[in-house]
Amino acid sequence: MLLEQIKCSNDVKKLSEKDLPKLCDEIRKEIIATVSNTGGHLASNLGAVELTVAIHRVYDTAVDRLIFDVGHQCYTHKIITGRQSKFSTLRQYNGISGFPKPSESNDDAFIAGHASTSIAVAYGIAKARTLKNEKYDVVAVIGDGALTGGLAYEGLSNVGCSVEPIVIILNDNSMSINYNVGGTARLIRKARLRPEYMEFKMFYRNTVGLIKPVYNATHAVKETIKKKFMSPTVFDDLGLNYIGPINGHDVVQLEKAIQYAKALREPVLLHVKTVKGKGYRYAEENPSKYHGVGPFNVNTGIYENKKASFSNVMGKELCNLAEKDNNIVAITAAMADGTGLTEFSHRFPQRFFDVGIAEGAAVSIAAGMAKQGLIPVFAVYSSFLQRAYDMLIHDVSLQQSHVVFCVDRAGIVGSDGETHNGSFDVDYLASIPGMTLLAPSSFEELQLMLHEAIYEVQGPVAIRYPRGEETDPVWSDDRDIDNDKPEITLLSYGRLITQCRTAAKVLRSKGIATDVIKINQLQKLDLRPVLSSVKNSGRLIVVEEVCSKGCIGEAVLSSLEQRGIKLKACYLLNLADGIVPQGTYEQLIKDYRLDSASICKIAEEIVNNE
Amino acid sequence: MLLEQIKCSNDVKKLSEKDLPKLCDEIRKEIIATVSNTGGHLASNLGAVELTVAIHRVYDTAVDRLIFDVGHQCYTHKIITGRQSKFSTLRQYNGISGFPKPSESNDDAFIAGHASTSIAVAYGIAKARTLKNEKYDVVAVIGDGALTGGLAYEGLSNVGCSVEPIVIILNDNSMSINYNVGGTARLIRKARLRPEYMEFKMFYRNTVGLIKPVYNATHAVKETIKKKFMSPTVFDDLGLNYIGPINGHDVVQLEKAIQYAKALREPVLLHVKTVKGKGYRYAEENPSKYHGVGPFNVNTGIYENKKASFSNVMGKELCNLAEKDNNIVAITAAMADGTGLTEFSHRFPQRFFDVGIAEGAAVSIAAGMAKQGLIPVFAVYSSFLQRAYDMLIHDVSLQQSHVVFCVDRAGIVGSDGETHNGSFDVDYLASIPGMTLLAPSSFEELQLMLHEAIYEVQGPVAIRYPRGEETDPVWSDDRDIDNDKPEITLLSYGRLITQCRTAAKVLRSKGIATDVIKINQLQKLDLRPVLSSVKNSGRLIVVEEVCSKGCIGEAVLSSLEQRGIKLKACYLLNLADGIVPQGTYEQLIKDYRLDSASICKIAEEIVNNE
Repeated sequence: MLLEQIKCSNDVKKLSEKDLPKLCDEIRKEIIATVSNTGGHLASNLGAVELTVAIHRVYDTAVDRLIFDVGHQCYTHKIITGRQSKFSTLRQYNGISGFPKPSESNDDAFIAGHASTSIAVAYGIAKARTLKNEKYDVVAVIGDGALTGGLAYEGLSNVGCSVEPIVIILNDNSMSINYNVGGTARLIRKARLRPEYMEFKMFYRNTVGLIKPVYNATHAVKETIKKKFMSPTVFDDLGLNYIGPINGHDVVQLEKAIQYAKALREPVLLHVKTVKGKGYRYAEENPSKYHGVGPFNVNTGIYENKKASFSNVMGKELCNLAEKDNNIVAITAAMADGTGLTEFSHRFPQRFFDVGIAEGAAVSIAAGMAKQGLIPVFAVYSSFLQRAYDMLIHDVSLQQSHVVFCVDRAGIVGSDGETHNGSFDVDYLASIPGMTLLAPSSFEELQLMLHEAIYEVQGPVAIRYPRGEETDPVWSDDRDIDNDKPEITLLSYGRLITQCRTAAKVLRSKGIATDVIKINQLQKLDLRPVLSSVKNSGRLIVVEEVCSKGCIGEAVLSSLEQRGIKLKACYLLNLADGIVPQGTYEQLIKDYRLDSASICKIAEEIVNNE
Repeated sequence: MLLEQIKCSNDVKKLSEKDLPKLCDEIRKEIIATVSNTGGHLASNLGAVELTVAIHRVYDTAVDRLIFDVGHQCYTHKIITGRQSKFSTLRQYNGISGFPKPSESNDDAFIAGHASTSIAVAYGIAKARTLKNEKYDVVAVIGDGALTGGLAYEGLSNVGCSVEPIVIILNDNSMSINYNVGGTARLIRKARLRPEYMEFKMFYRNTVGLIKPVYNATHAVKETIKKKFMSPTVFDDLGLNYIGPINGHDVVQLEKAIQYAKALREPVLLHVKTVKGKGYRYAEENPSKYHGVGPFNVNTGIYENKKASFSNVMGKELCNLAEKDNNIVAITAAMADGTGLTEFSHRFPQRFFDVGIAEGAAVSIAAGMAKQGLIPVFAVYSSFLQRAYDMLIHDVSLQQSHVVFCVDRAGIVGSDGETHNGSFDVDYLASIPGMTLLAPSSFEELQLMLHEAIYEVQGPVAIRYPRGEETDPVWSDDRDIDNDKPEITLLSYGRLITQCRTAAKVLRSKGIATDVIKINQLQKLDLRPVLSSVKNSGRLIVVEEVCSKGCIGEAVLSSLEQRGIKLKACYLLNLADGIVPQGTYEQLIKDYRLDSASICKIAEEIVNNE
């Protein structure tokens, strides 16, 4: 095993060129073996093995700063920077993160998880390096999908007008997460058609370019020749040196190209073509399916079909409604599969819009559509909708346009960890003027609320629901109260209502009369049931899967105080600052005391401690 | 006066070509006369007179949808769509808005104020038009400055891969608000060098192009010829038809070009070159100075030098600190003048970064800089920082990077109106994990807090301060309390503390003992002074210049309820939903009952009504 010799970033430099394909093969096997157990981002990571090894042949990531975009390509990097022994804990509670994480290793230069940040971050890092007179290299690795985000373009625009030595490696698998959309794909496709360029530049550099004074003197000549050879790419036009495209699975050629890019000491865009899923037949044949996977059988490629999820229930119901109403259109920001819109995209292709990884544009586009009488439904992960906070206020809310937001992955997301939790949406959506905010706790309720959002609500409306399955579909009614004289009131919404009702059962079995109040509509709170319950109980626990700041509990307590209602005891249970680590849902709700046992314990303490 | 004949969008079509320059001249005089009285966006509007008249010669904005980006170019449009008689009320309380506003006129197709939205919005509108089988044209007008925002690129990327007839008019004054920065400027500059293109395309269209079958058959030939003529622009590469550049002050030529763009029935980018400040000598000579102005003398161009403002005090103090500390860098998103950074940009050009209208990138760049040991200070308007909400969480907060945010225009902004108020920052900044949020009420305090933010605070920190002057610099101490037995407690921060202290004086003169508690740090509230005061008074009024959702009053009441403290009475005074209309600060704080007289009245009612 060559991999056993690789303990830190520099160790791959000790291998001979001829050993590199074998190392890559071993890394691939390690990734497949681990991800088949833990789940994770398979296809994108398999595509970046040679590229990552080549980067480490040229740079030392303990010193140089390597910034991954999104982070769906960082597994090889983790394996060859001292984390092979812990790699089996990938995405597990207390284990290795599936994304770059500086607190895990100094080799991880910057956090990632959201798309299109790497170029701007790399620019900031490079500027700091130069201003502080320090000596290290700065490299960003960005996929073609992330390049559809406006933030990447803002980064390129700043890098291009600088003279900072920065190497931006475009890992182009022509796929994004599903397939690449929009004009950006056209820009890149154009660049792909230029096989001779790399050879020419290499030739030039290896001959004329080797002597610095000659290089400078002939730079203008080179530019002239270059223009004759081909029309420049958008990257050249923005001010970067474009190199490519390079075969992303020829590790020796890659190393040379990266060496060359590094030697230029200017902003460089190095275009590398890779195959998503490379080296694992099933993933190569169906890279979308194997983008993010659960555990699977390595030999057959088979993994358990997903159980019904809130996402799929939404997508299915939206199809039902769209069947009868031509005004309904669906929008995704490169997440058709994840948000359950795949069926919609097949059945109503004219009314389906994948705008790229561009949540801001998605919201502005939806606002334009709504203004002219369509009913746009934008399905998006809670943490990614953060990108469009301003467009929610400016483009949608100021005109009170009727845009429907299906806010998926609200609350705890599990193994994706800190960057992906939907902790903030209740706070930031409730501050949007006129926004109606609905929270279903079951599939059936999601269906009803989708209908309500589309046909009964005026102005902007969001439905927040979690990743995965419903917790207990039998409890879908609103009322679960002890009419006589409750001793404690539990207030909650969404899937945590299940924990509250389970807790209530236990508490009642111990003789503690317990009301469970379920809220469905989070922004314009109907306080009447709460008031009538706490009037008797005098004790309140609010249980939520959101950060404490701006939580519903805070709003309820503030309202009670304004009404002069004094409670004997109250408790706000939530996700604290909202930065929730990776782990299973079951584990994490225990840690945050949102599970039925914790609720019971706290309730008993409150009731008995008086 | 030709202008007297122009009552609606279509009226300019009735004029003969030779009358158009005269009309434009009259419009210019009207704009200069009004803005010299009311203040407003002068230079950008003067540059767009011919362009706007030409647009109205071709389109009917009562039916067709004309979407302005930002809206700094909409005065001519307002004047010639029936609002001339009210134009003298521009930017005044209850008057005509300085920005497009659908509630003001159906000719205003969509709201504007924030940058880079128009292309995505136009795409949404065009898609709705097509899907609903309706017949109208869609036109967006965007400046070269707004094109530096990633959202514009996301919009272009979507438009380019569609076949929607949309005309995007690039109003290129080579300026943005100050001057154009970054790679985007390079892209446009490149396009500017092609005078022959327009003539060629026109020629082609007028000959071969007139007969549809021939047009289709020869389309490929045209493409080939086009490629020979010149290398395509980035707009061509994205999939749009590029036309230009056109002289933006030749109204006849403009009309023809727009007619042609409209006739193509495809996505078109029409590149128009204009001169910012055109037709008013002082503005042409110094367009930055006359971008946004207060009232001025038409004959001399002189307007009152700005009094000291929070912005300038910040900029000055930052220079003082940067003088002694090379690690301090300043970042702006195309707002060096507005945020008070002009002096910094001259004195420390290597440490000054204008990233374009790209607040998201500004935050990601700052995060990269902070990670490597610089101290980045991003000065930005409160409502524009909304664009970077996700980057605040993902790039800054998750790593607790020490980035300093100088959040200008917090609270009521006055005559810019709804789109520009800083109503939401206390809510959205306080939800950022680990964010420290400071609120100075005087210039002196801003200086102290800037020092504190840079040198004493760990992790991300924001200082929020308002537009304009301090209200009463003598009151800068923290304590203003009636030690014996207050009957009412007033709680506030920022400049409203002045209103509270004035109210307290009046209340005391009427025999009502009043405590005024000033908060300096908004996120980690120090409740002790509040608790000790309300323990005696039992009555609390919280006075804030923010939206009610997530306001400090809500957090305080929630805390009091949790502590079992029952108030006799409490009142939260704030900006309600945060959508504050245009008007003077003095008028608006009266409307929202944040002025001393209103506070007095409410306090007296509370105290006496028991």
